[in-house]
Amino acid sequence: MKQLDLMKELHVSSDTKIIMLVMDGLGGLPGERGLTELEAARTPNLDKLSENSILGLSTPISPGITPGSGPGHLGLFGYDPLAFPIGRGVLEALGIGLKLTPTAVAARGNFCSLDPDTGTITDRRAGRIPTEKCAELVNKLKPITIPGVKVTVEPVKDYRFALILDAPNLSDRLTETDPQRVGAKPLPVEALAPEAKETAGYFNEWIRKAFEILKSEHPANGCTLRGIAKDPGLPSYQEIYGLKSCAIATYPMYKGLARLVGMDVLDAGDTIATEIETLKAHWNTYDFFFFHVKKTDSSGEDGNFDAKVKVIEETDAVIPEIMALNPDVLIITGDHSTPSIMKSHSWHELPVLLYSKRFLRRDQVTSFGETSCIQGGLGHIRHVDLMPLALAHADRLTKYGA
Amino acid sequence: MKQLDLMKELHVSSDTKIIMLVMDGLGGLPGERGLTELEAARTPNLDKLSENSILGLSTPISPGITPGSGPGHLGLFGYDPLAFPIGRGVLEALGIGLKLTPTAVAARGNFCSLDPDTGTITDRRAGRIPTEKCAELVNKLKPITIPGVKVTVEPVKDYRFALILDAPNLSDRLTETDPQRVGAKPLPVEALAPEAKETAGYFNEWIRKAFEILKSEHPANGCTLRGIAKDPGLPSYQEIYGLKSCAIATYPMYKGLARLVGMDVLDAGDTIATEIETLKAHWNTYDFFFFHVKKTDSSGEDGNFDAKVKVIEETDAVIPEIMALNPDVLIITGDHSTPSIMKSHSWHELPVLLYSKRFLRRDQVTSFGETSCIQGGLGHIRHVDLMPLALAHADRLTKYGA
Repeated sequence: MKQLDLMKELHVSSDTKIIMLVMDGLGGLPGERGLTELEAARTPNLDKLSENSILGLSTPISPGITPGSGPGHLGLFGYDPLAFPIGRGVLEALGIGLKLTPTAVAARGNFCSLDPDTGTITDRRAGRIPTEKCAELVNKLKPITIPGVKVTVEPVKDYRFALILDAPNLSDRLTETDPQRVGAKPLPVEALAPEAKETAGYFNEWIRKAFEILKSEHPANGCTLRGIAKDPGLPSYQEIYGLKSCAIATYPMYKGLARLVGMDVLDAGDTIATEIETLKAHWNTYDFFFFHVKKTDSSGEDGNFDAKVKVIEETDAVIPEIMALNPDVLIITGDHSTPSIMKSHSWHELPVLLYSKRFLRRDQVTSFGETSCIQGGLGHIRHVDLMPLALAHADRLTKYGA
Repeated sequence: MKQLDLMKELHVSSDTKIIMLVMDGLGGLPGERGLTELEAARTPNLDKLSENSILGLSTPISPGITPGSGPGHLGLFGYDPLAFPIGRGVLEALGIGLKLTPTAVAARGNFCSLDPDTGTITDRRAGRIPTEKCAELVNKLKPITIPGVKVTVEPVKDYRFALILDAPNLSDRLTETDPQRVGAKPLPVEALAPEAKETAGYFNEWIRKAFEILKSEHPANGCTLRGIAKDPGLPSYQEIYGLKSCAIATYPMYKGLARLVGMDVLDAGDTIATEIETLKAHWNTYDFFFFHVKKTDSSGEDGNFDAKVKVIEETDAVIPEIMALNPDVLIITGDHSTPSIMKSHSWHELPVLLYSKRFLRRDQVTSFGETSCIQGGLGHIRHVDLMPLALAHADRLTKYGA
């Protein structure tokens, strides 16, 4: 039996509350002093919490596999990331609050710069135009129509936008148009299956009309489409776990991921402080709180070890406020590692801390770090194990079999 | 390739002997002194054995999942509990020594009390009538016949009995009759598939006749049927492991589980002392000994920390007698945790000790407990890993591939 079916069968109701605190890209690698970002950070609250928690290391997907944000979070949410691939277009669309019907096909659009003579790409991100410019250009694209198709186009951030086509019988078995290098022309959308030919035609028609509108713009006189996909139709948190759940996140993509599993997305402002206020304000309304801290990842991606340390310390500082809410279960981890020295996501395990008011095995670990967690009582687990453990500790799973 | 197929392919014969000592519900949680039952128990023999063993923690099914006794033992026996669900009716029938043919359908029966006027249930367990009363009532039900069907009904324990119908073409795709609450009438057996309609009719006919016989009884003037199921037809220990195996257990359910995988069930008396005598008496006859200690679980279920400690100490006391038999491999663990503070089964990992005369990696663990086992050389494994490890250490598995 698959894990989600098992959860669906075994979950029971309770008035317990679970928080999953995700520091994006939390895992690191030793820097100059031989310590990771988390180990270098001064985290008195996390360390104190470690004494009353069980710790371990968690692999997002499987050993050696570096996840994108989508698969990393799906794992945390308990959905096997290899069984549920999610197109980037879907994430972008959901991230800015667009709704996707079961027939809609979403693409992530990137404005780019084209050589006016040859039509080849000179900058795949159009000089990273600001969001305002992006919105202005998208407004010019909104009048594009395709007979029989509902067309939605909305700005996302910087040079990125979301495009959704909706009509009966569309397919997402389609290729991307980004040639992934400068000096090449954008590619046409091609059907990967006979049933996708009509949809490919619609996307190509939209691109032709968009290029016509954009041709006199600078630097964004073209665009590419990536990750063309339908909503995978994941079963919801309510359905599989019986949890009334919400997401507290500051960035569109994580809101989109949360929507994908049926979480309510709360207006959480832009900072950890506003996120904490949001958590407090909605404490009585939900059973499960996905609390997302973005900047651990961004600073890691920037290669800024000290900045990542600082974000971890900022997060540590709000732990007492979280604990003051008296959660039944609190899990602290990340979606994937983003070691500053790599400036990118990585495959390394995530330190994970499981605090529970009740039913908790203990270990001897008294600090929260990559090295200390090796000795943790949870051992080496996988992201998909976390939700079953959270539910069990929150008294929300009945036993399997007689 | 599935694990059982692999075992079937790779097992070789040997004259080595394996004991699996299962302390039911062994795993615990910290009590008043911060120690689990096993840690609080004085276990000089287990601790000494730990020095010459490799230790670890084992998950019965998967993280967070609390198993019933059936799935817990199937895992220990090396059968994926999620791939082989087993009906309670089958367990009850096998537990009291009834044979199930491949066409037989078994149900667990519960005597209950019905309101004589409305027919609704007033006590789902008929005041927990004693086993003697149960046997007396079952004797009155034995004359019930159904044309073309072989009917077997036998008392189990307290208010429980086993009912088996046997005829060609019976199906177990059937609903239960227990409405799971007082104030409701027993439900009819309903077919969950067209091929089960005839079988549903037979069960309902039996129930009608039984109610007619029971109507003047008190307090057991009715009954319900649960877990209606066929023997899942598991491959036997002999077939997959090449092991001549036996079970030394004092309680019906564990005898039934052992029969399910083709073990001989020995007459083992009622105490650990009689079980040890049984082990000694049959030492030369078998390759594999499933040795079951029940009362660790019962005392855990009763919430009696000290009683559980005492059963563990009693078991510790017989370890020298077991070791005097000079087993090649001895595994000591439990089917699931039953922490006294929870008074129920739980999902927590089981401490596991693997002693082998030969081929043994060692670790630094010198006591047998939940916390010490975190550092054990076996790491975190699953119950289904134990049989392959036992066979390997007993020189009973050849290599896979050239």
